[in-house]
Amino acid sequence: MKPIVSIIMGSTSDLPVMEKAAKFFDEMEIPFEINALSAHRTPEMVEDFAKNAHLRGIKVIIAAAGMAAHLPGVIASMTPLPVIGVPVNSTLEGMDALLAIVQMPPGIPVATVGINGALNAAILALQMISTGDEAMQQKLINYKKDLKNKIVKANEELAEIHYKYKTN
Amino acid sequence: MKPIVSIIMGSTSDLPVMEKAAKFFDEMEIPFEINALSAHRTPEMVEDFAKNAHLRGIKVIIAAAGMAAHLPGVIASMTPLPVIGVPVNSTLEGMDALLAIVQMPPGIPVATVGINGALNAAILALQMISTGDEAMQQKLINYKKDLKNKIVKANEELAEIHYKYKTN
Amino acid sequence: MKPIVSIIMGSTSDLPVMEKAAKFFDEMEIPFEINALSAHRTPEMVEDFAKNAHLRGIKVIIAAAGMAAHLPGVIASMTPLPVIGVPVNSTLEGMDALLAIVQMPPGIPVATVGINGALNAAILALQMISTGDEAMQQKLINYKKDLKNKIVKANEELAEIHYKYKTN
Amino acid sequence: MKPIVSIIMGSTSDLPVMEKAAKFFDEMEIPFEINALSAHRTPEMVEDFAKNAHLRGIKVIIAAAGMAAHLPGVIASMTPLPVIGVPVNSTLEGMDALLAIVQMPPGIPVATVGINGALNAAILALQMISTGDEAMQQKLINYKKDLKNKIVKANEELAEIHYKYKTN
Amino acid sequence: MKPIVSIIMGSTSDLPVMEKAAKFFDEMEIPFEINALSAHRTPEMVEDFAKNAHLRGIKVIIAAAGMAAHLPGVIASMTPLPVIGVPVNSTLEGMDALLAIVQMPPGIPVATVGINGALNAAILALQMISTGDEAMQQKLINYKKDLKNKIVKANEELAEIHYKYKTN
Amino acid sequence: MKPIVSIIMGSTSDLPVMEKAAKFFDEMEIPFEINALSAHRTPEMVEDFAKNAHLRGIKVIIAAAGMAAHLPGVIASMTPLPVIGVPVNSTLEGMDALLAIVQMPPGIPVATVGINGALNAAILALQMISTGDEAMQQKLINYKKDLKNKIVKANEELAEIHYKYKTN
Amino acid sequence: MKPIVSIIMGSTSDLPVMEKAAKFFDEMEIPFEINALSAHRTPEMVEDFAKNAHLRGIKVIIAAAGMAAHLPGVIASMTPLPVIGVPVNSTLEGMDALLAIVQMPPGIPVATVGINGALNAAILALQMISTGDEAMQQKLINYKKDLKNKIVKANEELAEIHYKYKTN
Amino acid sequence: MKPIVSIIMGSTSDLPVMEKAAKFFDEMEIPFEINALSAHRTPEMVEDFAKNAHLRGIKVIIAAAGMAAHLPGVIASMTPLPVIGVPVNSTLEGMDALLAIVQMPPGIPVATVGINGALNAAILALQMISTGDEAMQQKLINYKKDLKNKIVKANEELAEIHYKYKTN
Repeated sequence: MKPIVSIIMGSTSDLPVMEKAAKFFDEMEIPFEINALSAHRTPEMVEDFAKNAHLRGIKVIIAAAGMAAHLPGVIASMTPLPVIGVPVNSTLEGMDALLAIVQMPPGIPVATVGINGALNAAILALQMISTGDEAMQQKLINYKKDLKNKIVKANEELAEIHYKYKTN
Repeated sequence: MKPIVSIIMGSTSDLPVMEKAAKFFDEMEIPFEINALSAHRTPEMVEDFAKNAHLRGIKVIIAAAGMAAHLPGVIASMTPLPVIGVPVNSTLEGMDALLAIVQMPPGIPVATVGINGALNAAILALQMISTGDEAMQQKLINYKKDLKNKIVKANEELAEIHYKYKTN
Repeated sequence: MKPIVSIIMGSTSDLPVMEKAAKFFDEMEIPFEINALSAHRTPEMVEDFAKNAHLRGIKVIIAAAGMAAHLPGVIASMTPLPVIGVPVNSTLEGMDALLAIVQMPPGIPVATVGINGALNAAILALQMISTGDEAMQQKLINYKKDLKNKIVKANEELAEIHYKYKTN
Repeated sequence: MKPIVSIIMGSTSDLPVMEKAAKFFDEMEIPFEINALSAHRTPEMVEDFAKNAHLRGIKVIIAAAGMAAHLPGVIASMTPLPVIGVPVNSTLEGMDALLAIVQMPPGIPVATVGINGALNAAILALQMISTGDEAMQQKLINYKKDLKNKIVKANEELAEIHYKYKTN
Repeated sequence: MKPIVSIIMGSTSDLPVMEKAAKFFDEMEIPFEINALSAHRTPEMVEDFAKNAHLRGIKVIIAAAGMAAHLPGVIASMTPLPVIGVPVNSTLEGMDALLAIVQMPPGIPVATVGINGALNAAILALQMISTGDEAMQQKLINYKKDLKNKIVKANEELAEIHYKYKTN
Repeated sequence: MKPIVSIIMGSTSDLPVMEKAAKFFDEMEIPFEINALSAHRTPEMVEDFAKNAHLRGIKVIIAAAGMAAHLPGVIASMTPLPVIGVPVNSTLEGMDALLAIVQMPPGIPVATVGINGALNAAILALQMISTGDEAMQQKLINYKKDLKNKIVKANEELAEIHYKYKTN
Repeated sequence: MKPIVSIIMGSTSDLPVMEKAAKFFDEMEIPFEINALSAHRTPEMVEDFAKNAHLRGIKVIIAAAGMAAHLPGVIASMTPLPVIGVPVNSTLEGMDALLAIVQMPPGIPVATVGINGALNAAILALQMISTGDEAMQQKLINYKKDLKNKIVKANEELAEIHYKYKTN
Repeated sequence: MKPIVSIIMGSTSDLPVMEKAAKFFDEMEIPFEINALSAHRTPEMVEDFAKNAHLRGIKVIIAAAGMAAHLPGVIASMTPLPVIGVPVNSTLEGMDALLAIVQMPPGIPVATVGINGALNAAILALQMISTGDEAMQQKLINYKKDLKNKIVKANEELAEIHYKYKTN
């Protein structure tokens, strides 16, 4: 079973944030790989990874990093694959990572999700793959239905809370 | 020829920003459509558009908006397709639009590009479609080669500038 | 007893913030309802709610949300009622929610209160209803008198603190 | 004809921003008054205005100010009427005025609209008055229909723009 | 013994921050008073205080407030005395309070110190009074000498920390 | 006639901002001096100035600077006089200068006014001197009355603007 | 004459900003080179440059970039030389570039100067080289003297401006 | 053994941040000194230190400070040596210190590292010294190799984490 999504973190300390992406792929039964590669400390490994990912069958790369978060952009500059960037909140509430990921110059986009938005990165990866794979799209549609049901149920629990002038 | 990418703007005043995306698709020979739909002024039209886009053969949606930019997120909540959000700078240097697009709650991602990043949105759309279409990926690889050549040429022109102690 | 104010939260996790609004309505003996509806996860329910609220006798809607907080604006786009937006602090100190709520485009206002400002949202709802209801306005005037008395009393306690050169 | 809405500006230099509110009331045939009163330079006049507005038949106050914008909050502290605050962009892109208006302490809300959001302030005033006046609410519903038609028409004009691969 | 400095807080919850000012005045043997008065909840008391302070012999007012911190500016608008503003950090790291205090419009200055800067407010008050009182200025000069000695002593303790390649 | 206020600028390019302070002192007939001294380029001259100002009869120092604005704090560290800091907007909308001036550490206050707030700096200087000089205080009280009259007059002009539904 | 400093720009559009560095090196008679290399569009050329610069006799690299400015950090990850980063203001007042350059993770520093701070980058380069070259240090000491003289002279011109109550 | 690097802190409370720099120098066997000197509380000692450091054989100065962090810039104005500034996070997430250090005016650079970036400051100091000392440069090259090995090893540990659909 070859991976079709690759999760890359700038540091192993980003793992608690990125676990939500791994769990989503497990739940959706999508083969993936997960590695730590630093744009700054292991640039050659990053280059090797980025240049070959599409040749190995990877379809989407998810790259997470904090601070002056260069990893997503550096990978994006060396692959034809779409790269999803996850800004990790380690300093300045994550604003430094957000700007360092999203404000890419013309020519090299990074598909940025919210700060610490690992689950959204994984859903987005599935949406990207779905553009060429109808079975994947069906998984997505089912997933969204489940989300809605959770909200409906949560709301029912909310109806149990009592105030004197509350009418629902 | 059916469109496979749909560009949506919150207001026709966003057209000067979004033209770069339209030109890119023309250059890449990718059929697309472009419309103005306001999340706030025409919510029913947005709903109708979002719910049916994937049934019409659209594979990726690019949504641009400024200020409290809800359009990309609202569309994303009603389609299984990947939605690319373009924050438009109309107030606060575009920071309001950026945060209103990128900080989506878990479950509903928007693939955000930089402020006024219409060209990057278009390239990203092509990358997403490429995950299931090798001919598209080849177009991307060629496009990146052209980008590099432009830089190399620009640098040659730079070499023409003279300072006494400049050695290149 | 039909509700005249409706409190909507983007997520049940916003309940600890919004409780202050519910308690205020209980104290003021104003019938209200409280629900969780996500602009992104349950868009059809939001639409159904927003389009019918004024037909059910609701006079003001209070909508609370965090992050890229679209709920207040989305509801405002589908109702003639005034919508009060409460930015909830879940990321970026609440700045993302504040900008995503207050910076609405021309035509669709949201009456925004401070970050986590649930009590102020409730008082504001009462003020809005008071524009057509003198009994309500009298409640407000009494409430403000109580507020002032609390400050006066707190100041008296402050006078009990002793410093050698303090003269009051 | 007695005014039911009062527009107050911190400085006559705010008039170009606030004209949109005046025009909206003219268009909607709502009697209003407009004055310049500075929270800092004419505090007694502000007090006199704020304490008596509701006794003169005013139902909603719109207060605009820039920089350390105290006017809306100061008025709100002395009236039972709802106060709508309009942050005016004169320094720091209007962020100082926004925070100085919206971040009111518990007990004294100001219904804040976006930076320079005079039109939205006027619409919101009409929505507030509509809570006790069905004729007003009907005006609002008609106004929203017109807004939608403008967007639809703008989109039709957009369809006239030609790109080779544009399909709509 | 009549007070010559008056400390005003927007809320008794600001007391832990403002205690440093009170202690400084005790240490310097400067008679002062300390009260809580809210610009928004007790506007008449604020007005009464501000208009009469200079008639009672007060020479400087220190006003502390958080959030949309209007208290210092409101007092400054009603007194000829210099007003020192202390932004209190209760939300947004204190940035809202800082901007709401320092960005006063032309004509009504507030002498702003740093966020939670109660000690500096007290020193500044003493410096202001010193412009007309040489004995006060001498106190200040002595106070600064003490500060310097503390740093010198702290540095001596630092010299006790050992690293192998540390040479001092 | 010896100066009692000294205006210092970090650069002669700050002169257009600081002229308002000079004009105010002329109008108020307060002898002053004005110089450019850079904390970074002429540190010895700054030291010489700061250490001797109070010995020459200066009562208040106004120091203006932009960017990493150290001048007010550096002077404050070497004088017993109160130092008023004026953040000059040359980069980042003046936020860098504001923070570099107002966020002084405990022990060394700078009385900070708003960005480019030269007039307020001058008024504040007069207020400081007034703490020990009743004639000065009377000038201030007169100045404030003039300010109020200007607003009242401006409002009268505002009343001349006509809208159909405008009632004042 | 081999270059000892290398100036790299992310884009030729950064040239107007970086010219001040080139002029400084000309004035100081320091051999340098200047090139445009994009971290994202020409990653292999950046790698080739960074890995070999110290082998060619380069002692310091100055790298300028705007937006999500990765160039300085990417170069720093592949060279033992000190890298000076110049954030270029092209969006968001340069805050995105500043944070993307200065907030480097532990292990890979970039010596960051102010936004558009090309001259300071050049001076800093000279200071770095001076740590092992006394002749260079002497140049610096002379340069600083000239700076001081310019300020002194500017101040003399300032003394020519007349106000009635100005005493210098 | 004479020190070649001098670490200066604005306050002894910065020691926990700066310890990483001291440890790095110990590890690299580079003689250094460490002191606390406040730009504001001990200006004469700072001046004495700054003017003489290069005469004592110091080659690089590392200066750390928080809030309105003037220490690095003040030292830089009085020495020909390169000064590395470390913004310390004590208020506003360290943004005040960052801007007060990095935004130096033309002529007086400070080589700024990230917020609390003491280790990077130390590495940068070593890089600066290496421009004139090949043995130092070799130490750096070795240090970077160690960094890379740590990442490689961390990644191997990451490979031990199991998910059902994880393939590496």
